[in-house]
Amino acid sequence: MHPLIQHIRKITAHSNIPEEELLSFFETRSFRKKELLQEEDKRCLSYFFVIKGCIRLFFTDHNGAEQTLQFALENWWLTDLDAFRSGKNSAYSIQALETTEVLTLTAKNHTLLLEQMPLLEKYFRRIYERAYAATLLRVQMISRMPKNEFYELFASKYPDFIQRVPQKILASFLGFTPEYLSELRKKKIKKK
Amino acid sequence: MHPLIQHIRKITAHSNIPEEELLSFFETRSFRKKELLQEEDKRCLSYFFVIKGCIRLFFTDHNGAEQTLQFALENWWLTDLDAFRSGKNSAYSIQALETTEVLTLTAKNHTLLLEQMPLLEKYFRRIYERAYAATLLRVQMISRMPKNEFYELFASKYPDFIQRVPQKILASFLGFTPEYLSELRKKKIKKK
Repeated sequence: MHPLIQHIRKITAHSNIPEEELLSFFETRSFRKKELLQEEDKRCLSYFFVIKGCIRLFFTDHNGAEQTLQFALENWWLTDLDAFRSGKNSAYSIQALETTEVLTLTAKNHTLLLEQMPLLEKYFRRIYERAYAATLLRVQMISRMPKNEFYELFASKYPDFIQRVPQKILASFLGFTPEYLSELRKKKIKKK
Repeated sequence: MHPLIQHIRKITAHSNIPEEELLSFFETRSFRKKELLQEEDKRCLSYFFVIKGCIRLFFTDHNGAEQTLQFALENWWLTDLDAFRSGKNSAYSIQALETTEVLTLTAKNHTLLLEQMPLLEKYFRRIYERAYAATLLRVQMISRMPKNEFYELFASKYPDFIQRVPQKILASFLGFTPEYLSELRKKKIKKK
């Protein structure tokens, strides 16, 4: 069974999903490590569902440093949602951090899909609910926790990220300097 | 027509909504200015829909300062979503900033409502989609913009907040000191 169908079954608790019809709304695309799925300031045409690999959403700040706002591993969705919904240019780039395979969904097909398969309303309602709750949790962790506790919690909640995401990029996402992150990791290894 | 029914019609573009049946899932409650709708570390029992007034979600940090993470004016929903979904204690307090009237929805009724009225899946999918996009936009504004530009953009996007929310609370939400916010406002008035 296709990973997306498995995911929809898991999230909605419905087993009767017309696999072929549903997948016809998507295209499958592959990207090499470091390749861009979306360029900043270009039209935002796709919503990405990660089948295999890891992608990140980032922008380049005034000092030329890349700031990462979000990641997606297997079974996560990622796009510049504001640009995707409005048809504007993307405020971000999206890049593959590993060899990555994704499903792509255009805004037009997103609308059609929801019209033709109302079950997907429930699926996306839950996806957004989780994503929104996760974003609030991140804001909360950043604002109220000492940095080392924040790292511990993040590492326990998302062990895959810690393993798979390059240190420099992980540090930027957590709001740490790469040196500080490296120190934290050394301390953690010593504790073990 | 009840404000919630109007809002559902607007968001879903459906006009055929069984008003009485739908409202039977909710209770109406009123709060005085400064009264708490939800206390930190108490069970999170309700999702709030603002009919009239203004509420905020906040916590008290290690230094005893109140940090505001979110607001809701008329037609916005607010709760500690993570706690509401999981049945845990709330990590935040919710307080009325004006005399406020809300609809309250329990987690049990939220589930029942979605089961019995699938149209509400579409409504909440769009509500979360917007809330999620707004949260990302805020993270982006905080990370990539000079503070004065961030304030200008925020003021143009949410003029009601700027008028209605007390300065000290607005400053905490924007990540400014009250003094810095006061300076920005004076400069803005001079420009006019």
